[in-house]
Amino acid sequence: MLIEELDTPAVVIDRRLVEANLGRAQEHANRRGLKLRPHIKTHKLPLFAQRQVELGAAGITCQKIGEAEVMADAGLQAIFISYNIIGRQKLERLLALHRRVTLSVVADSPEAVDGYASVFTDAARPLAVLVECDTGAGRCGVQTPVQALELAKRIASHPGLRFEGLMAYPARGKIAETDAWLSEALDLFKKEGIEVRRVSNGGSPDFYADTAVASATEHRPGTYIYSDRMQVGWGHGSLEDCALTVLATVVSRPTPDRVILDAGSKALAADTCAAPGHGHIVEYPEAVITMLNEEHGIADFSRCASRPAIGEKVRIIPNHVCVVTNLFDEVHLVEDGEVVQTLPVAARGRMG
Amino acid sequence: MLIEELDTPAVVIDRRLVEANLGRAQEHANRRGLKLRPHIKTHKLPLFAQRQVELGAAGITCQKIGEAEVMADAGLQAIFISYNIIGRQKLERLLALHRRVTLSVVADSPEAVDGYASVFTDAARPLAVLVECDTGAGRCGVQTPVQALELAKRIASHPGLRFEGLMAYPARGKIAETDAWLSEALDLFKKEGIEVRRVSNGGSPDFYADTAVASATEHRPGTYIYSDRMQVGWGHGSLEDCALTVLATVVSRPTPDRVILDAGSKALAADTCAAPGHGHIVEYPEAVITMLNEEHGIADFSRCASRPAIGEKVRIIPNHVCVVTNLFDEVHLVEDGEVVQTLPVAARGRMG
Repeated sequence: MLIEELDTPAVVIDRRLVEANLGRAQEHANRRGLKLRPHIKTHKLPLFAQRQVELGAAGITCQKIGEAEVMADAGLQAIFISYNIIGRQKLERLLALHRRVTLSVVADSPEAVDGYASVFTDAARPLAVLVECDTGAGRCGVQTPVQALELAKRIASHPGLRFEGLMAYPARGKIAETDAWLSEALDLFKKEGIEVRRVSNGGSPDFYADTAVASATEHRPGTYIYSDRMQVGWGHGSLEDCALTVLATVVSRPTPDRVILDAGSKALAADTCAAPGHGHIVEYPEAVITMLNEEHGIADFSRCASRPAIGEKVRIIPNHVCVVTNLFDEVHLVEDGEVVQTLPVAARGRMG
Repeated sequence: MLIEELDTPAVVIDRRLVEANLGRAQEHANRRGLKLRPHIKTHKLPLFAQRQVELGAAGITCQKIGEAEVMADAGLQAIFISYNIIGRQKLERLLALHRRVTLSVVADSPEAVDGYASVFTDAARPLAVLVECDTGAGRCGVQTPVQALELAKRIASHPGLRFEGLMAYPARGKIAETDAWLSEALDLFKKEGIEVRRVSNGGSPDFYADTAVASATEHRPGTYIYSDRMQVGWGHGSLEDCALTVLATVVSRPTPDRVILDAGSKALAADTCAAPGHGHIVEYPEAVITMLNEEHGIADFSRCASRPAIGEKVRIIPNHVCVVTNLFDEVHLVEDGEVVQTLPVAARGRMG
């Protein structure tokens, strides 16, 4: 089937661009002596997770147990859940998962650590726990290297847990600050004679930056597999590297300059970025999607040399690709204008 | 099961508030002599569509064929798709649907009309087509009453189609303008001796306004079933009327004032509204959800008298409820703190 024969809205993924994006990142990691532990939240597809490991990734990263369960079912072996797992129900699922894969998780509070310890009690097969560090992003994480050390000691005090290392979700662009924070922590751990096996750093935009977070031993890029307008705006590649587009149909042309597409906020999501509008229309780069309703994308074509006909299909590069994947039940892999495979987004819709 | 026993994030719907919201709207429509044709895009649940009809709705409104197919499967009989249906694949599905329910659709261009005519050819069972009118919202729709008349004539010229009426998705707050536009069109149609069976008006926020669009014969509110922060901001009821909340767990408290919830943009969506932040935390009304990452809601509790413990569950009223429903595969109906029913969101994930 040709791409244009797909009914819309539909997610179309260029397989060659995916392969190029994955390969480039793995080579870059290899050159820097970094392990790659790609975050699968962006694609949620076992096929691509397997491909990431084939290309050399040390394992994959998930953001919730539901994603990790799907990946374990598909045969993925080394899974890092970079999220505090809180609450009895999730902890029991985590224990079941731990019995079949090589699992690691994070904690940033005594409560999180003690939760793990309440369920993981087997000293012969301890759960690997990293301490999440807030190196400036203002999300989760302990606030100081001293707190990181205290929490590591608390982890180590439980026989069913093993202190594994440090994890940062760094503030974008703050490479030096992140490195300083982690280096200070590593000095502290060294003085105490505590081994830090992994220092895990994340984020796609800074992955290719000239200076690296030298203290990191691994990186968890997610969006790099597809890229999007947000990533391009942050200096991560160009629009030509964007592998995922939303195919949409022109359903109305009410005025000479206004074009209505059948991709709204339920297909593109309302996430904004520095570039104007709600997505980049590949065939009409000067068009601006000025507003999204749920099933309508409203575009201003006043700066375009030509106008699409009603019924014409166009491809849109989303602002933020990770949330788009999460809206669709299936995606279409394409090559040379042909649909070569249609895949269910196996790990979407997992709540927790 | 108690609400607090649900794993998070989860969608929790108060059945009594739904019943109150539905009943109030139906009574209001009855008083005004308006037919109600509720838009199911908000809930996507056959159970609630059936309830809307039981309470007196003249039928339901859908925004795409996939939604209408699910509702037809569930036994709903009168279905209005308030959207231009464009393209051969969708038109064939539309024809199949037309054979089993009482269907109506809209058109705002000769291309849309001729598309319908290419598939609907049975004069004994014509497809009812309304002309979509842009009365000021700047989305789809013919621009002038004269264009509406021309398009109605084009619809009537096809034996397989029947001109049914006019449809507006009005600009919020522009009741007088919408009424003036539609009244002018009705005068024009009257002069030409063309019957206008339905004048369909939409939107929840203006439904309860003191002045009504007097020319309308029916209204298509959607969000009124649950309401949300956006609706409340526009003067539609209060936060106490909001029937749908997202149950979330506190997963981190990295600083005294910062609280991290396990509901991010993949649970609450990034839609913004006039009220600050990304949702209203019922138990901590002074808290502000300042940022969403995909699986993290980052909240500022500096103005709250108390702080939640890690592991505590809270309920969040979303900014825009229609896009939240679209993110979850199932929802939980509750009453008096108990979960009484768990339903699949049957009509979500229908692309086109």
